[in-house]
Amino acid sequence: MGKLEGNAIVFTQGGPTAVINASWVGVVEGLMDAEEVTGIWGSMHGIDGILNEEFVDLRKQSVETLNAIAHTPATALGSTRHKPNAEANQKMLEVFKKYNIRYVFGAGGNDTSESLDIINDEAKAQEYELRMFHVSKTVDCDLMENDHTPGYGSAARYVASAFRGVDLDNKAFGGIYLGVCMGRHAGFLTAASALGKEFKDSGPHLVYVPEKAFDLEKFVVDVEKVYKEHGRCVIAVSEGIEDKNGTPILQLLSTGELEADSHGNVQLSGTGALADALVGKIREHLEGKGIVKKLRARGDTFGYLQRSWPDQSSVDREESLNVGRTAAKEALSGNVDGSIAIQRVSDEPYEVKFVRVPLKAVAGKTRHLPEEFINAEGNNVTDAFMKWGLPLIGEQVKIGELDLTKMVEKK
Amino acid sequence: MGKLEGNAIVFTQGGPTAVINASWVGVVEGLMDAEEVTGIWGSMHGIDGILNEEFVDLRKQSVETLNAIAHTPATALGSTRHKPNAEANQKMLEVFKKYNIRYVFGAGGNDTSESLDIINDEAKAQEYELRMFHVSKTVDCDLMENDHTPGYGSAARYVASAFRGVDLDNKAFGGIYLGVCMGRHAGFLTAASALGKEFKDSGPHLVYVPEKAFDLEKFVVDVEKVYKEHGRCVIAVSEGIEDKNGTPILQLLSTGELEADSHGNVQLSGTGALADALVGKIREHLEGKGIVKKLRARGDTFGYLQRSWPDQSSVDREESLNVGRTAAKEALSGNVDGSIAIQRVSDEPYEVKFVRVPLKAVAGKTRHLPEEFINAEGNNVTDAFMKWGLPLIGEQVKIGELDLTKMVEKK
Repeated sequence: MGKLEGNAIVFTQGGPTAVINASWVGVVEGLMDAEEVTGIWGSMHGIDGILNEEFVDLRKQSVETLNAIAHTPATALGSTRHKPNAEANQKMLEVFKKYNIRYVFGAGGNDTSESLDIINDEAKAQEYELRMFHVSKTVDCDLMENDHTPGYGSAARYVASAFRGVDLDNKAFGGIYLGVCMGRHAGFLTAASALGKEFKDSGPHLVYVPEKAFDLEKFVVDVEKVYKEHGRCVIAVSEGIEDKNGTPILQLLSTGELEADSHGNVQLSGTGALADALVGKIREHLEGKGIVKKLRARGDTFGYLQRSWPDQSSVDREESLNVGRTAAKEALSGNVDGSIAIQRVSDEPYEVKFVRVPLKAVAGKTRHLPEEFINAEGNNVTDAFMKWGLPLIGEQVKIGELDLTKMVEKK
Repeated sequence: MGKLEGNAIVFTQGGPTAVINASWVGVVEGLMDAEEVTGIWGSMHGIDGILNEEFVDLRKQSVETLNAIAHTPATALGSTRHKPNAEANQKMLEVFKKYNIRYVFGAGGNDTSESLDIINDEAKAQEYELRMFHVSKTVDCDLMENDHTPGYGSAARYVASAFRGVDLDNKAFGGIYLGVCMGRHAGFLTAASALGKEFKDSGPHLVYVPEKAFDLEKFVVDVEKVYKEHGRCVIAVSEGIEDKNGTPILQLLSTGELEADSHGNVQLSGTGALADALVGKIREHLEGKGIVKKLRARGDTFGYLQRSWPDQSSVDREESLNVGRTAAKEALSGNVDGSIAIQRVSDEPYEVKFVRVPLKAVAGKTRHLPEEFINAEGNNVTDAFMKWGLPLIGEQVKIGELDLTKMVEKK
């Protein structure tokens, strides 16, 4: 089989991560020495750059520049949330033909893999030979076939660090702290709040994920139990928690109007309303029952810093580079297409492999937190989760044992 | 003059910082070899530990433990916001006499220095010899006599890193990003949002601090200007911004009820309402004027992570240790009292000194962002601020030049 000669394009789609640059840089590195790949172009702002024929020449970049970009959060190629319709798909194919683009690499989540799959099928129908690759990316960790996804480790590192710090802050005063984490349908990022735990009494003491129906009555009783034991309680909550009927808790508790996103879903990020409402419910319960007269209770919504914090997980960065390199290598290997997944070989020592899986196995599907990662009560993670998650976030900032209270002496 | 023999206590008061442990560890280090200091005790939960006679024995701690604690955010001694009244002050003096406590070190902000000053005056009136020291601490950087305060550098490091990351995230999509930073009366922490700027077009493009009256009409026009130039705008806002009559903007824009804190002030932290409301006003303006059809606009409220993030500024940690050590050294030097301030010797090379100043010079006063740190328009910081602030936050995560757009070619 002869080699397929033509140009390559890479693009990034959807919400950036701290390491999505590393993924596309990995693709470029992997293609650089291939003579059959005539041009290596970046499409600016995802598929919009294809539709508008706006490209940058990535063969012109020095190794130093590419390496620096791989260490930088967000995406130097820009992004978009534009989901192409049938007409746009046709237009893209025309652009591919016009410029003899034969290698296509799209970094994104399950929406992106779905778009790539549709265009790929259409190209096959028109007998236009393409190497079409999905380079997996999402802080939500919710792609099928993957043990974890590029971008998750860095976002998880941020969430773990955040709770490691606020837990000590909360311990200094006592009372309640509640942090709302990203994750509409999958609780991986919220679960990462536990990865910074260092001591026996470390928070978060309670963790709520969208995989389990959220019961407000049970929630306040859970908090009461922890508060009575520790004089404090640190809680991690997914923005996407829902009741047993599938109604978002934010919607149930909200008094004001909620904004809808472009898909018609209630906008969960970019509002502090869920944290405020849950903290209010806890206050109502603990003060109402006379357990505490005036409760110290605080809530934060972590927001966009989770995906954009510049201190990447070094493990995540290396793996993201390798996902990109593997995509390039596979594309150069013959008449193939697919998505590159990270699969775990062993926990100890931690080892993964990078595997080509069918586009259709990933396209448009959502992976959820496995049952064995959530405790029976549905209000915390398990040891199995800790074992799985700890290798992903890189080395954590060291902290010291703070429990001086054991030495308290009434003189 | 003979040496004053007796016990020493250290305590921490008010909101923790990432380095307040370093300050009290510095005190303990400084006292450890002094024979006249019989016991070195930590009072648990600030002045509450004095009133309840709950102490821990800090002479029992190993050097390794103390060093580990100095690297840990928040305070291992616990804290309180309890502001003592006249009766409590008398009670504390009685406890000092009962246990022959002669050396007192309180780490805290301007409220704490005020309390210490009052107790100190009372001890003098009763002719009870005390060495009374205020160990300055606050993420707000608002203590008189100080170039900057222990705790500020680490919080500023967090805010700078946060904007460094979200600015790239915003650049990938375009649109508006607004982040609300801590700071009721002083804008130092919000100003730190600029310290992570790396490139010509880096955000934040607009910075609003409480030192300048906030005008909502001017604000949306400021945003419009930046948006028209860059297709995007990143904005940093202090939680404490007020209009020209001194009314908090949060209060002006809020539709719901606002919680009051124990001093009767409107609770500014722990609510996402200001970010949400300002983003709404920007959307209303830009969409209303037809400048953009559907604006992508996001707001985050940074919350407690600003003061508790575990990755300390190394500069801040070292200085905090030295403030504590200096307090101990001064206390051992003779019949003195005071507050330890950080004063700048030179900008390049960056050098500071640790100076004893009168308690009354710090007590209950608020320092504001100097005029020369705010631009004439009142919507950004100046180069003078950048020069002042950059040495305080430690080494930043390196990021690469991302501006590939200059190479865009319409094929």
